[in-house]
Amino acid sequence: MGRTMKAVQYYEVGRSPHVVEVPVPEPGPGQVLLKVTAAGMCHSDISVMSWPAEEMPYELPMTLGHEGVGTVAALGPGTVGVEEGESVAVYGPWGCGVCWKCAQGKENYCLRAAELGIRPPGLGRPGAMAEYLLVDSARHLVPLHGLDPVQAAPLTDAGLTPYHAIKTSIPKLVAGSTAVVIGAGGLGHLAIQLLRAMTPSRVIAMDIADDKLSLAREVGAHEVVRSDQDAAAQVKELTDGLGAEVVLDFVGNEPTVAVAARCAAVEADINIVGVAGAPLPVGFGLLPFEVSVSSPYWGSRAELIEVLELARGGMVKAHVETFGIEETPEIYDRFREGGIRGRAVILP
Amino acid sequence: MGRTMKAVQYYEVGRSPHVVEVPVPEPGPGQVLLKVTAAGMCHSDISVMSWPAEEMPYELPMTLGHEGVGTVAALGPGTVGVEEGESVAVYGPWGCGVCWKCAQGKENYCLRAAELGIRPPGLGRPGAMAEYLLVDSARHLVPLHGLDPVQAAPLTDAGLTPYHAIKTSIPKLVAGSTAVVIGAGGLGHLAIQLLRAMTPSRVIAMDIADDKLSLAREVGAHEVVRSDQDAAAQVKELTDGLGAEVVLDFVGNEPTVAVAARCAAVEADINIVGVAGAPLPVGFGLLPFEVSVSSPYWGSRAELIEVLELARGGMVKAHVETFGIEETPEIYDRFREGGIRGRAVILP
Amino acid sequence: MGRTMKAVQYYEVGRSPHVVEVPVPEPGPGQVLLKVTAAGMCHSDISVMSWPAEEMPYELPMTLGHEGVGTVAALGPGTVGVEEGESVAVYGPWGCGVCWKCAQGKENYCLRAAELGIRPPGLGRPGAMAEYLLVDSARHLVPLHGLDPVQAAPLTDAGLTPYHAIKTSIPKLVAGSTAVVIGAGGLGHLAIQLLRAMTPSRVIAMDIADDKLSLAREVGAHEVVRSDQDAAAQVKELTDGLGAEVVLDFVGNEPTVAVAARCAAVEADINIVGVAGAPLPVGFGLLPFEVSVSSPYWGSRAELIEVLELARGGMVKAHVETFGIEETPEIYDRFREGGIRGRAVILP
Amino acid sequence: MGRTMKAVQYYEVGRSPHVVEVPVPEPGPGQVLLKVTAAGMCHSDISVMSWPAEEMPYELPMTLGHEGVGTVAALGPGTVGVEEGESVAVYGPWGCGVCWKCAQGKENYCLRAAELGIRPPGLGRPGAMAEYLLVDSARHLVPLHGLDPVQAAPLTDAGLTPYHAIKTSIPKLVAGSTAVVIGAGGLGHLAIQLLRAMTPSRVIAMDIADDKLSLAREVGAHEVVRSDQDAAAQVKELTDGLGAEVVLDFVGNEPTVAVAARCAAVEADINIVGVAGAPLPVGFGLLPFEVSVSSPYWGSRAELIEVLELARGGMVKAHVETFGIEETPEIYDRFREGGIRGRAVILP
Repeated sequence: MGRTMKAVQYYEVGRSPHVVEVPVPEPGPGQVLLKVTAAGMCHSDISVMSWPAEEMPYELPMTLGHEGVGTVAALGPGTVGVEEGESVAVYGPWGCGVCWKCAQGKENYCLRAAELGIRPPGLGRPGAMAEYLLVDSARHLVPLHGLDPVQAAPLTDAGLTPYHAIKTSIPKLVAGSTAVVIGAGGLGHLAIQLLRAMTPSRVIAMDIADDKLSLAREVGAHEVVRSDQDAAAQVKELTDGLGAEVVLDFVGNEPTVAVAARCAAVEADINIVGVAGAPLPVGFGLLPFEVSVSSPYWGSRAELIEVLELARGGMVKAHVETFGIEETPEIYDRFREGGIRGRAVILP
Repeated sequence: MGRTMKAVQYYEVGRSPHVVEVPVPEPGPGQVLLKVTAAGMCHSDISVMSWPAEEMPYELPMTLGHEGVGTVAALGPGTVGVEEGESVAVYGPWGCGVCWKCAQGKENYCLRAAELGIRPPGLGRPGAMAEYLLVDSARHLVPLHGLDPVQAAPLTDAGLTPYHAIKTSIPKLVAGSTAVVIGAGGLGHLAIQLLRAMTPSRVIAMDIADDKLSLAREVGAHEVVRSDQDAAAQVKELTDGLGAEVVLDFVGNEPTVAVAARCAAVEADINIVGVAGAPLPVGFGLLPFEVSVSSPYWGSRAELIEVLELARGGMVKAHVETFGIEETPEIYDRFREGGIRGRAVILP
Repeated sequence: MGRTMKAVQYYEVGRSPHVVEVPVPEPGPGQVLLKVTAAGMCHSDISVMSWPAEEMPYELPMTLGHEGVGTVAALGPGTVGVEEGESVAVYGPWGCGVCWKCAQGKENYCLRAAELGIRPPGLGRPGAMAEYLLVDSARHLVPLHGLDPVQAAPLTDAGLTPYHAIKTSIPKLVAGSTAVVIGAGGLGHLAIQLLRAMTPSRVIAMDIADDKLSLAREVGAHEVVRSDQDAAAQVKELTDGLGAEVVLDFVGNEPTVAVAARCAAVEADINIVGVAGAPLPVGFGLLPFEVSVSSPYWGSRAELIEVLELARGGMVKAHVETFGIEETPEIYDRFREGGIRGRAVILP
Repeated sequence: MGRTMKAVQYYEVGRSPHVVEVPVPEPGPGQVLLKVTAAGMCHSDISVMSWPAEEMPYELPMTLGHEGVGTVAALGPGTVGVEEGESVAVYGPWGCGVCWKCAQGKENYCLRAAELGIRPPGLGRPGAMAEYLLVDSARHLVPLHGLDPVQAAPLTDAGLTPYHAIKTSIPKLVAGSTAVVIGAGGLGHLAIQLLRAMTPSRVIAMDIADDKLSLAREVGAHEVVRSDQDAAAQVKELTDGLGAEVVLDFVGNEPTVAVAARCAAVEADINIVGVAGAPLPVGFGLLPFEVSVSSPYWGSRAELIEVLELARGGMVKAHVETFGIEETPEIYDRFREGGIRGRAVILP
């Protein structure tokens, strides 16, 4: 009889997750078994648990957690590329590894994942909020090389997602440019640090909550602006009437996309990262010339390697509160209410 | 007493333009006087003439024509960079020549043009539908080096605008990619040729009119699709369900932006070039991941040089009907009704 | 007792390769066994067989052939991503699949291949000039989707290598630019076609042999120039004294790099693809401003997918002579003497 | 009779420059007369003054100084784009303003400057080491918007040149990358700051002089390495054996280009900015794969705007010693001997 482990599972639509005992998985050919050392909690978990039963694409019960870090506990037959005992972060948006997008390392945009039923751990596959995590391939793993697992966990999504969005806009973030970060929470407070480390841009942070604005200042925002009806006007004033070259919206609801549109300069990039799903209308005359609006999803494998290098160089540091696995269900409640500053990380 | 010349002027909101006699302008310091050899007729002229009086930003009467080609007739004091007698095309979207965008040759996105009251010829300034055209600087002129003026005229806008949109998307137009061109009229029929010359993409053209679809075929579209409710489904079928990497919408009304959205592949670019102004909503979950939507305006100075090189190399050829200056008012009427295949060019 | 197969092996330094019977390999976990349908012959094979014993990095005997195409004959345990019976091309420059370069699909520039002893088939590992080929991972395979194996084989190197070099220079290959191709042999005759399909550049081909120049014309070169002392002057004359924006040297010996240097325009790219190893000196005042010189190696996985798409679209076609496996040793002799027009492909 | 002014002129090959009285120039159409407020001294002045008579391309006597800052004193007829009294920096590498390169703002690479005899102030045209400077067009001027003229002067060349070189390599200067700066003098000490401000790269500075290495540390280098025979080995050790993604050589002599070559990682950029003119040989097998070597010249107009923005934001600060115009000849002597830390600026 196999060993068992604790896992935080979402087991019924509308109910809070709970902690259960499940079998420890066995790695097959090419697979890797990780002993989880840290697992980040993310707003998309909250989103998933708010979907009605008829829209739930994942089979329940499902172990949560798509921000995973662990130690290699066992290798399946033929697995190469990692060593037992190595400390690694998990690249979450798995793809087929073979198609045109995957060949570029963009497994987040795999052309065949849907068709083949490939899903990220914690978003369809058993996730990292458990004592062990089964990973399909060594290529999904990035060595920590001494980085603290508690730091690394949130970087795999809350760090990687803004990193990807910013990297896309690097050509516009030249000297003299301005970047607006809307929402200074889990992703936003990392985005501010990434912008400061990667670019010479002036960073203006926006939020509705005072504590988020003070966190924004703390992590390096040059300016902070309360996200209200005057917010766009303030950005215009801070930029001699020109607006910002890049706007990163980590909320994506109606008020924030409206403010994003009004902050944008000619040829700006607006990246709607937040998953609230509000529409920002684009068309001739609706925005300044050639403002480019898009909504990215997670990031590439190489980008995860890069964002962990930034952390190792001390250029980005997640604000984290840690919790034990048994506390996880109640922490989800606190998180939903906005009661976490920065990011919550579970230590199984 | 000064010489006079014929000019096609829009003189009162709601009325058709007419041909009048006006003084031939004198070039001041740095300016150039052109003897116009060809002037293209453009849909934006129709747009301008449909605006109500209270939205008209230009002073009337105004000489029409923002696609101009001519021979250098006289140079103002201190003007260098062109020679008398040289045959040149006019770069239309003039800027201040000094600001950060102008320093990159993007005078179309000049940061100070509005403030300084700088406007393109034919869109605020006296235009090219006249015997002579006054140009503010030699830097707005591109030598034809033997190119036919009748060919060159439409390329300054109907060629340059799609060229710029395509050039922005070149990194996505790799081997194996698909480009959809919506609207195979004045700009669209040139866009098809530009895509064929500049990229290895498969080109799918869409239109509601049979003659436009046949023109699309003639100028190089690999596939043509009637722009109806099945259009997006056909694009999906032609692309193994993946959609197009680039969509160029030369119409921009509600049906076309809707079809553009449904044709787009993951990470696609949608360029809404048409000025109809319908909104395409962007946000998480509303389009495939990281589809980037924007609405560009005209192009840069260097891009005009490049598009004329393409024409000189025989890689792009405008379908043109030519008319005398006296016929211009009635040709505008025919053009408004869609009765021109390709582009109308006036020979003053 | 296992099955055996024929294989073309280089077995002793200084001797011609011969055909021997060797065991058919068995695929381990994650591996794929291909029944070879076509294998290209390449100049680097000749180079390898010219190295003295003390510089030979590979263990002998070694089965030759790094341009392989085949049908999936058997899958190892846990192998996913290809199906038995599928017709596929082999991406040759294998890497670890995990490092930062591999994460971008640039396995040709793997940071750990040397340390881990990973080598391409035919260049250290048993190659494709055999009845069967063992491939380490499904990710090294690209489906042919109907493309002729005889066409596909040379594209995996003689097509991919120039494709990569050209793709790097795409931003310089705009309308009005000129590309010079030095050496119109196996790689060069494909480079000409790739340039024509992918860019609007004017293509000038250079060679010392008349039949190569006529092949160059046939496959689309706009101009051909005999590669002698006047060659650079002719390029200057064809480009109004400015020179070429991109020079691709598929030879890389002293005369060709010298001519490459003299052909280059300000800000040009010189790609030395040929492996002859002659030095082109770069420094202030030695070349026009900001000419960038580099020597690339093979290409990326995604680029192989793209170059096969080009072939499927009929935009590139290798000139090929085919031979049986028994003839291979003598064909190598003919190839060494320059007696193959285009590319030789072995059909095992 | 016109007014006169003091000017520092190089008047005979082999002699030190001297201070003379010359007429104050009058601005013609489109020109601008500046009252000079600061003029930087540059190593290229020393180079120019070391050329033998038969290689001297400029007419003597010639007023020195190609790093100029001033106040607009008078506008020629028809000059627009600047106001009298405005404080501005001079973009030095003037071009024709009309050709394809100039249309992109790359007047430093103007295709017609040589043919038209257009030269930078201080390098063929009367320079900034005088009380007044005549500038051909308002487009060569960038407003200081409050920046200190003494700071701005060296940025027009010693800042702009490394800024341009770095900007070209931005895609390679991602998180986890390393940049090596060889030569921590006038350009190098600014390059270090620019790298820190614009990128997340680790910066390794190299020099032969202790005081330059301590300056390098002071302005932000992460590591400093004495430029001797072990220098490349130390860079390799600091980069886990991989080498640096970007090498900027501000010297360009035989020892430095040799060390640059040995420091470079696969796919690195080596920018030889120093004008010593030693050759770095490129070819297959001579450098790691796809290392790109080039030697740039100055920068673009938009880049000057950007580098001044960086200075205004406090992200880059030239180490400067200031001198009066009468001292200039002897300061050139001190500068030649390496006796200036950072940059010398003349205040006329």
